[in-house]
Amino acid sequence: MAKELTSRSENYSQWYNDLVVKADLAENSAVRGCMVIKPYGYAIWEKMQAQLDKMFKETGHQNAYFPLFIPKSFFSKEASHVEGFAKECAVVTHYRLKNDPNGKGVIVDPDAKLEEELIVRPTSETIIWNTYKNWIHSWRDLPILCNQWANVVRWEMRTRLFLRTAEFLWQEGHTAHATQAEAIEEAEKMINVYREFAEEFLALPVIVGHKSANERFAGALDTLCIEALMQDGKALQAGTSHFLGQNFAKAFDVQFANKEGKLEYVWATSWGVSTRLMGALIMAHSDDNGLVLPPKLAPYQVVIVPIYREEEQLNAISEKVLEIVAKLKSRGISVKFDNNDAKKPGWKFAEYELKGVPVRLAMGPRDLENGTVEVARRDTLTKEVVEVDNIDQYVADLLDAIQDNIYKKALDFRATHITKVDTWDEFKEALVNKGGFISAHWDGTPETEQLIKDESKATIRCIPSDAEEEEGKCIFTGKPSNKRVLFAIAY
Amino acid sequence: MAKELTSRSENYSQWYNDLVVKADLAENSAVRGCMVIKPYGYAIWEKMQAQLDKMFKETGHQNAYFPLFIPKSFFSKEASHVEGFAKECAVVTHYRLKNDPNGKGVIVDPDAKLEEELIVRPTSETIIWNTYKNWIHSWRDLPILCNQWANVVRWEMRTRLFLRTAEFLWQEGHTAHATQAEAIEEAEKMINVYREFAEEFLALPVIVGHKSANERFAGALDTLCIEALMQDGKALQAGTSHFLGQNFAKAFDVQFANKEGKLEYVWATSWGVSTRLMGALIMAHSDDNGLVLPPKLAPYQVVIVPIYREEEQLNAISEKVLEIVAKLKSRGISVKFDNNDAKKPGWKFAEYELKGVPVRLAMGPRDLENGTVEVARRDTLTKEVVEVDNIDQYVADLLDAIQDNIYKKALDFRATHITKVDTWDEFKEALVNKGGFISAHWDGTPETEQLIKDESKATIRCIPSDAEEEEGKCIFTGKPSNKRVLFAIAY
Repeated sequence: MAKELTSRSENYSQWYNDLVVKADLAENSAVRGCMVIKPYGYAIWEKMQAQLDKMFKETGHQNAYFPLFIPKSFFSKEASHVEGFAKECAVVTHYRLKNDPNGKGVIVDPDAKLEEELIVRPTSETIIWNTYKNWIHSWRDLPILCNQWANVVRWEMRTRLFLRTAEFLWQEGHTAHATQAEAIEEAEKMINVYREFAEEFLALPVIVGHKSANERFAGALDTLCIEALMQDGKALQAGTSHFLGQNFAKAFDVQFANKEGKLEYVWATSWGVSTRLMGALIMAHSDDNGLVLPPKLAPYQVVIVPIYREEEQLNAISEKVLEIVAKLKSRGISVKFDNNDAKKPGWKFAEYELKGVPVRLAMGPRDLENGTVEVARRDTLTKEVVEVDNIDQYVADLLDAIQDNIYKKALDFRATHITKVDTWDEFKEALVNKGGFISAHWDGTPETEQLIKDESKATIRCIPSDAEEEEGKCIFTGKPSNKRVLFAIAY
Repeated sequence: MAKELTSRSENYSQWYNDLVVKADLAENSAVRGCMVIKPYGYAIWEKMQAQLDKMFKETGHQNAYFPLFIPKSFFSKEASHVEGFAKECAVVTHYRLKNDPNGKGVIVDPDAKLEEELIVRPTSETIIWNTYKNWIHSWRDLPILCNQWANVVRWEMRTRLFLRTAEFLWQEGHTAHATQAEAIEEAEKMINVYREFAEEFLALPVIVGHKSANERFAGALDTLCIEALMQDGKALQAGTSHFLGQNFAKAFDVQFANKEGKLEYVWATSWGVSTRLMGALIMAHSDDNGLVLPPKLAPYQVVIVPIYREEEQLNAISEKVLEIVAKLKSRGISVKFDNNDAKKPGWKFAEYELKGVPVRLAMGPRDLENGTVEVARRDTLTKEVVEVDNIDQYVADLLDAIQDNIYKKALDFRATHITKVDTWDEFKEALVNKGGFISAHWDGTPETEQLIKDESKATIRCIPSDAEEEEGKCIFTGKPSNKRVLFAIAY
């Protein structure tokens, strides 16, 4: 195994941690809970960002930037928001250091205490709605459709690279609307942008649904989400879109004059995805040899490795390879020609497998003679020898096929991991022996959801948007229910 | 005047503040010294980012991301760095809030005090070199060529939008090399990337040079800079590139085994530009009517305003305009068709002048009949009526001409604002009556530079890279000097 990756069956959690570090995606830093995103990992995140940004702009949104710091008092203004957020935060209390009078080093200057503490943003609803107050006066100022790409901090006790870190990168959309209907439509539009992105780019099938009251965002009237399934049978929330009603408008007194000149409170949404998507991407597709990347997000889609003994052979091969590189690039395919003489082909093969490069081409003297090239695909680990003449078309088609195949594999996995159950015993049995999503009736109360969680660790991941009406009985209380919800153990 | 902009001659500083706010670029936030970058301002910054990012990648750099927080002790490790940086910083001392037991709101939880305080990064050399220690073992691991796009915080006492804010956005490149020569070459390469970007995209002529010891970055052996001149005769440092020697490698014990297997300390550079470039862009080119944007950085390069009385006229004009829009877009020109019926053409003209849109097209019923369109250019405020048939070619050429003209205007201004002086009286006279750069001999000592600053407020902006050898006498002390340096009053 390349670089001694723990296998998934041996220890899934360790496999993930190994993979993130050994594939050069990220690592822990000297600051507890904060990660360093390494160049190869960041290149994948940049591809995600670029695509999402394009989709946000196509749906009429603009980027802006709001302050990193939020005055402490802002958090108290929206009552349920403070309960959910203001607790585990990084708090700035001073603005100066000074030389330690007792020796070396620096200490916090006690004379430089802030009058009001500043919180490093865990999310930006409060500072943004405080700003929107000055931007919104009349219905003509609406809608406001802003997004920001930013870092946020939540002081998590147990952290894991990409999945749960104290500092993470994300985007947060914050929109303001004149009507409830328009805000609800926006929240739904954006969860569908996330769904489309997850399916078409991450190759990750997701279920769109509503959160139960227990799992809702602090301050939201409704939280829409996309839920994905990982290979270990655990669910992962990959994105959320909140209908915030008029809660933040009321907390920050943001009113507008409607067409009749009457003052009304503004309606709000917010929506976000984060570097957590990196965790989803890794865990959904990768295998015991390393990363498996969907071609649409791979930093380079093709790597070409020359096989040679003498420099003369390398020169002859390089000439042919550079032709291939040019052809591939002209089709917009990103390609790396690894002619590093210090590494053997075997080492390179293992390295690019570990890093999930979708297609590997290898060319030796025999290939050169025969006008062929060896093509290996990362998702299936299969190899073929093909004619070099139409290699660009072949690779273009292959990249599409790989993207489709990765998606289909994840979809098949999910299809076999949604289990309908009708009793509490079936529920527990499915959860322990099979994992995945469990589709079951629930009486709709937060109390029952909490009891189920206490007994099984499973939570309601969502009430699927396409759930059908169906009479049934709550698996836990036996009380009547009219639709099934999806439970799972979640990241 | 549109939206009552203060004129430059009346009060240049107020003109700048008015313009930033009224052109919807940025505004002050509820957090002292932190700004909100509004969508129109952010769109310009995004264009800068995209171009710089491209240039960094073309020169072999990769993006990565390092933590927002830096342990306090890291700042003490590089002696001169702590003197320059660790003083005015945002300090995180606690990680939790709790409900105020005495009433409403939240307070800092005294039980959640950090063992070691965390500093919100003012720059990232320390945390990055602490990370590089684990990445670098042998000469094969070098060079490392990383950049990060990030927010940083410096607790400035007097702040101005874009020019000096507590939080600002920037990029910081941090590279590691096996040899001194290679690190120096890198620092020079990157200051030239900045020069090229400033000249070709910001349309801003800059002088490349070295900082004197007084003005050097804390921890650097040499600081290269690009210095620009604003319309009020003050200089603005627009970018810096530092040769850091082995200072940070020694502070964080980063050694590599060279080809002979011997351990050596690694050589370093760092380089950065920030949202301060927005301030430079605004102050260099804009006029009493508002922003003047170089076409290469304008969020939209062309705006089209229809002139009509009845809806029928608008429909006929719109049909023609949409053809023009399609033609312009196919050439990669960004264009906005403003058919908002709620605003009059006069209002729109003033608004787009204020916002610096390089080219404005206006089309009325008469134009439609004659097959013409009115073209107004923002930089010269001149208008022409041209044939609609080749409008796309006309506009493409015009955009190039505007980009060139804005640059040339700034270059001419600078040429007339570099004054050679040989005596202290001439120096003071030029500084007071003319401003701009003053080219003078200096004895090379920090003490003299400080005395000149105390008496005149002028600092040495740089020792130009292309300064010629010339025997002379220091204007202040009369001691011998062998080249002229550039003084100015600076932002």
